[in-house]
Amino acid sequence: MSIRIGIMGYGNLGRGIECAIKQNEDMELTAVFTRRAPESVSILTEGVKVYPADQILDHKDEVDVLILCGGSATDLPVQTPEYAKHFHVVDSFDTHAKIPQHFAAVDASAQEGGKVAVISCGWDPGMFSLNRLYAGAILPMGQDYTFWGKGVSQGHSDAIRRVEGVVDAKQYTIPVDEALTAVRSGSNPALTTRQKHLRECFVVAAEGADKTKIEHEIKTMPNYFADYDTIVHFISKEELDRDHSGIPHGGFVIRSGKTGWEGENTHIIEYSLKLDSNPEFTASVIAAYARAAYRMGQEGAKGCKTVFDIPPAYLSAMSGEELRAHLL
Amino acid sequence: MSIRIGIMGYGNLGRGIECAIKQNEDMELTAVFTRRAPESVSILTEGVKVYPADQILDHKDEVDVLILCGGSATDLPVQTPEYAKHFHVVDSFDTHAKIPQHFAAVDASAQEGGKVAVISCGWDPGMFSLNRLYAGAILPMGQDYTFWGKGVSQGHSDAIRRVEGVVDAKQYTIPVDEALTAVRSGSNPALTTRQKHLRECFVVAAEGADKTKIEHEIKTMPNYFADYDTIVHFISKEELDRDHSGIPHGGFVIRSGKTGWEGENTHIIEYSLKLDSNPEFTASVIAAYARAAYRMGQEGAKGCKTVFDIPPAYLSAMSGEELRAHLL
Repeated sequence: MSIRIGIMGYGNLGRGIECAIKQNEDMELTAVFTRRAPESVSILTEGVKVYPADQILDHKDEVDVLILCGGSATDLPVQTPEYAKHFHVVDSFDTHAKIPQHFAAVDASAQEGGKVAVISCGWDPGMFSLNRLYAGAILPMGQDYTFWGKGVSQGHSDAIRRVEGVVDAKQYTIPVDEALTAVRSGSNPALTTRQKHLRECFVVAAEGADKTKIEHEIKTMPNYFADYDTIVHFISKEELDRDHSGIPHGGFVIRSGKTGWEGENTHIIEYSLKLDSNPEFTASVIAAYARAAYRMGQEGAKGCKTVFDIPPAYLSAMSGEELRAHLL
Repeated sequence: MSIRIGIMGYGNLGRGIECAIKQNEDMELTAVFTRRAPESVSILTEGVKVYPADQILDHKDEVDVLILCGGSATDLPVQTPEYAKHFHVVDSFDTHAKIPQHFAAVDASAQEGGKVAVISCGWDPGMFSLNRLYAGAILPMGQDYTFWGKGVSQGHSDAIRRVEGVVDAKQYTIPVDEALTAVRSGSNPALTTRQKHLRECFVVAAEGADKTKIEHEIKTMPNYFADYDTIVHFISKEELDRDHSGIPHGGFVIRSGKTGWEGENTHIIEYSLKLDSNPEFTASVIAAYARAAYRMGQEGAKGCKTVFDIPPAYLSAMSGEELRAHLL
C-alpha cells in the first residue's frame, strides 16, 4: 500500500513535491489543497483533485502525510501547528532564528493530535544542518564554514526590483573561490562577509532610467548588498527571460578539524550541492522525510521532529537488510 | 558523569580512540585491554591501566562502552559477538560483503545481553554509507559514485612488499580527475575500474634487485594492480621514511540525480573527506557513535545497530535545544 500524500499550497514547491512523488513508487498523491480558486489550479497528476484549503478536514481519511508548501514568514507559523493536530505533516520552515519557537508550537499540537510533524526540511535547514551536526560530532576540535551558491536569491532579487527604475532583476549569490580554497587548506581562516560571498545582479532598467543611480542604490543597499562586493549588469528583458529564468542553487558545508594527541593532524569534511532547481531539490528532501514521518507515525511516535531526530534508514524505501547489503 | 570508555586492542586505531576521547569532554578512558603483555604497551593517558584481554570481564563495572579495535579479517568476527553479550560495543568491521553475516551474529549476542552494539563505524563503511543512503533517498532517479583517495592502501602496500626483491613499499590510491569531472557534470558516465582510480607505488628495492622485473610483477598483479593504470617509482628507504610515513586517506561520494516531471533538472550531491590520518579520523567517528551507543543503551535499546539506525542527534554532545538553535 502506498503512502498517501496531500499537498497544501501549489506553487514551485508544491509542484516539486508532485514531481518527487512520481519518482517514489511507495507514494501517491491523493489531494492538493489551495487557497486559490481550485478550478484555477492545474496540476500535473491525472485523476487527482484540487480542493479548497478550508475543506481539508473533510479529506482527513485520504491523506497519510500532509506536506505544507507555504512560506516561512506568515503561512507556516500558523499552518504547521494547525494541521499537525490532524495529520502527520512535513514543512520546510527556514527562518533559522525562529526555529526553536516554531518547534515548540508544532510540538504542542502534534503531541495533542498524536501525530508526527517534521519541520525545517530541505537543504538549509535540512541536509546542510545534518552535515554540520555529523561533522561537528566527529571533529569536536574544528570549525564550520557554510557557503551558499552559486544560486538565485529570491529575497535579493526582490530587493533590487523595489529600486526605482528597475523593471526586473535576478541576483546570484556566489561563493568566493579564494575563500573556499583557504577553508579547504585547513588553515581555519577568519572570513568576513565580503570575503565569503559576492553578489552578481542582472538588472532590466526602465527606458530612460538613470543606470548609474540604480547601480549605486543597489550596491549601497544596507543588509542586502552594502557588505558585499556586488557586480551589476544591465541587460534586456529578453536576455533576462532567456538566460536567467532558472532557479539554481547550492552551496558548501565544510568542517576543518584536528585530531591527534596534540591536534597534529588536519581533516576536511566537505558536503556540497549543485542544484538545477532549488524548489525541486527541496521537495525531494521533503518527500524522503514524508516517508520517515509516516513510518514513525505507524510505530506510534508523536510530536515535532527535525532531521536531527530521524534515523537515516527511515528515509529510504529499502529495508534494513537491503541497506546493509548494498549501501553500508 | 562521563561516559567511561574501554579500548580493546591498542594499535593505530586504539591510539586514535584515545586521542578522540581527549577531545570529548563527556568521555573518559577507563581501561585498555591487550593481547600483548600489558607492561609492553605504553599508552598516552596518565593514570589509565592496561589489562590483559582475557581479564576483561573483571573490569565490567568500569566500562560503559567498549570499543573494539581489532581487524575485520579474524578479530572482529569473534570479538564483537563475544563482547556484545557484556558491554555496549562499537566496532569498525569493514569487510563490506560480510556485513549481513556479522550483523546477524552481533545482533543475537547483543539481544541476549541486552546491550547496544554498533558495527561498521568509520568512514567507509560509515560516513560514506550514510551519504549514499541520504543521497539515494533524496534523488531516487540517479546514480552513485564512490571514489577513494588520495590515500594509502595498506593492502596494496603489503602486496608490493611480498614481491621478490622489494624491501619496503607504499601504495597510493588516486581518483582520476577526468572521472570526477565527468561525474560532477551530471552526465552519469559508465566508468571502468581503470577510468576511476590510478595506483601510484613508491618502492624500495633490495640492492642488486631487478627493478624492471619488480615493476612488471607489480603492474600485472591480478586483483591488486592489473586492472589499473599503475605508476611505479623506485626510491631509497630514507626517502620512503621521510616522505611517505603518513597514513592519509579520503575520497568522494557523489550522487547525480534528476528531478522534474520528465527528469529535466540535474542535481549533484557530493560528500568528500581529506584526511591526514585515516585511523584517527575513523576513531573520531567511532567516538561519536560510542556516545550514541551509550545513550541508546540508557534508554533501554538493545541489539545490533549501524549508522543507518541511529538518529543523528545521538552523536552530538549538544542537547536537542542547542542543536536546533545553533546547527539547524
